[in-house]
Amino acid sequence: MEVQISQEKLSKALNNVSRVAAGARAAMPILNNVLIRVDEGKVTLTTTNLDMAVVSYLPVVSSKNGVVTVPARLMAEFVSNLPKGETVEILAEDTKVTIKAKGYTSTINGASAEDFPELPEIDETKVVRFQMSAEEFKGGLSQVMIAASNDMTRPALTGVYFNTFEGAMYLAATDGYRLAERKLIDKLEAEVAAIVPAASLQEVLRSMNDEVDEVEVLFDETQVRFRLGEVEITSKLVDGSFPDYRQLIPKETEIQMKLERDELIRVTKLAALFAKEVGGSVVCEAKAEAGVFTIASVANELGENSSEVKTEVNTDGKVTLNSRFLLDALNVLDGKKVEMGFSNRLDPVVMRAEKQSNYVHIVMPLKG
Amino acid sequence: MEVQISQEKLSKALNNVSRVAAGARAAMPILNNVLIRVDEGKVTLTTTNLDMAVVSYLPVVSSKNGVVTVPARLMAEFVSNLPKGETVEILAEDTKVTIKAKGYTSTINGASAEDFPELPEIDETKVVRFQMSAEEFKGGLSQVMIAASNDMTRPALTGVYFNTFEGAMYLAATDGYRLAERKLIDKLEAEVAAIVPAASLQEVLRSMNDEVDEVEVLFDETQVRFRLGEVEITSKLVDGSFPDYRQLIPKETEIQMKLERDELIRVTKLAALFAKEVGGSVVCEAKAEAGVFTIASVANELGENSSEVKTEVNTDGKVTLNSRFLLDALNVLDGKKVEMGFSNRLDPVVMRAEKQSNYVHIVMPLKG
Repeated sequence: MEVQISQEKLSKALNNVSRVAAGARAAMPILNNVLIRVDEGKVTLTTTNLDMAVVSYLPVVSSKNGVVTVPARLMAEFVSNLPKGETVEILAEDTKVTIKAKGYTSTINGASAEDFPELPEIDETKVVRFQMSAEEFKGGLSQVMIAASNDMTRPALTGVYFNTFEGAMYLAATDGYRLAERKLIDKLEAEVAAIVPAASLQEVLRSMNDEVDEVEVLFDETQVRFRLGEVEITSKLVDGSFPDYRQLIPKETEIQMKLERDELIRVTKLAALFAKEVGGSVVCEAKAEAGVFTIASVANELGENSSEVKTEVNTDGKVTLNSRFLLDALNVLDGKKVEMGFSNRLDPVVMRAEKQSNYVHIVMPLKG
Repeated sequence: MEVQISQEKLSKALNNVSRVAAGARAAMPILNNVLIRVDEGKVTLTTTNLDMAVVSYLPVVSSKNGVVTVPARLMAEFVSNLPKGETVEILAEDTKVTIKAKGYTSTINGASAEDFPELPEIDETKVVRFQMSAEEFKGGLSQVMIAASNDMTRPALTGVYFNTFEGAMYLAATDGYRLAERKLIDKLEAEVAAIVPAASLQEVLRSMNDEVDEVEVLFDETQVRFRLGEVEITSKLVDGSFPDYRQLIPKETEIQMKLERDELIRVTKLAALFAKEVGGSVVCEAKAEAGVFTIASVANELGENSSEVKTEVNTDGKVTLNSRFLLDALNVLDGKKVEMGFSNRLDPVVMRAEKQSNYVHIVMPLKG
């Protein structure tokens, strides 16, 4: 194998794929490696952690076919420290990989490509696919992912549910305490019902740099592939069924308010400081006559706190919430104003950005 | 106690002093608190970890005398989240401290000021003192501190040695493997020989924001005080004697080179990547005929690496160094070119910035 390649392009591609190369998985050290394949003037770099694989495609200056694997992070750090604007030469003889640039020579001990795990195949003629603006996709995904669970004993909740409903495509996630749903595409012909692991989606988000304008998403029965410019991420789907979440979103609530988002973030943060000893729980109260919404911490060793925000509100009500969940939701809602509604102490609190119907976030109350 | 004070000034001062309030020292929880003293129209905020104390002085809008202590971090986070431009009102009744700003009320449970440790006194009429530009002081201190030791079994090496020699004032630090010395003041009348703990100096560096133009330093027999604008840091000195380090700095070396600093940093980083498995050790070689300086890693499981930098050099030589120490030194040397000199495999390597005689850094070789 022999290849000449621009330092900047190689460095960017190596940084992208090396994140997935697992940090010294004792059982399979080859997972730390990146597979470098040179084939007819093209280079592909591949890493996998068995749950997902990342492939990056690169143009080359000149090349001789071949394939080898080398430790991904070492290679990425090495190439990123070479001077910009140079051409890097990679030569593999058996598993000895020599990297040269003007004045610099290194030999990295690699491993045979035969030991590298088989990569998942997707038959692209038999998939459901959609394409959309990378910015829109990134925005929607970020709004939903915060509600996904970390609890590996309930795998279906550790992912984002891509699903079609009445012809539209939605993303949804819930950890049982809160739920986020975002309508992503108004009209999609095919049907989708797939849970994509949040860990894979984190990698998708990280790979969507400014150069990626569009994303293409392909589903088969058990896998999903994201095409992001020169990078392709393929992940297993979560095997399980997502809860029938739509019934959990209240159609309407008794109490309705519109609040300044920045102001609500501030008072929630203040209350959260005093709520550390009580698991973050804060008491929210709507007062119709005074025209205020108050957030108060429960009195405890630290002291107590109460703040109010002006709002128009139709009737009195009180609910106890986890301040962290409230902050998470407020941070992903777009726009200056937040619409917040609830009915009684035990019904879910519904939050939306004013005039934006494509996103809804619900938070379950605590038993105050 | 009652005081009205600008949110911005209070917030800045609280952030400054709260770093020192120890994170929940089980033995003395009062060390988590900040002492707030209102006396004749002035507020002082004080924290201490027993080794050092930080005092911040603040102007007030209006006040009634009194003194109380409250958890420093809670208070700092609370005030920093209040809206800017507001006036904050602090009221203390016994140990209940109420903080009010427009629409916000909090009660923090404080503790009596009687339980707060006595603060160190310095008789300012009996001290050695000097004053200098904050920028110059910060620069010099940063260049030296990297060589201080973390090894608490050798306390004298965990500080920076402020010392006078032939009428000038120097800073020096060494961990036994490397040594840094910086001349700070060309002429100082008095004599100084004091070891200031690196931990206290870290705090001094952090407190030197852009608003601090000048620093005043005062030494008595056992303590040092740094005056930085509205902040005053007082620290115990390290009890012990600093090694007689001047004899360790070679007056001249057999091999002399001038090297581009950026280039040398780059090749050292590259070699360090391959030196992880051998404790960071790299082999440096001067080759007079070829006019190059090479840095190479020792061959090991990862592979091997060799890079060269062009230089004029008078004679051949070879030395094995810890790449991390080399990088640390290169990062604090000013200017574009580095003067590097050594004699044989076991003599110290001497590094200076070209045309700058006020700083010298020496690194002991490894037995290669």
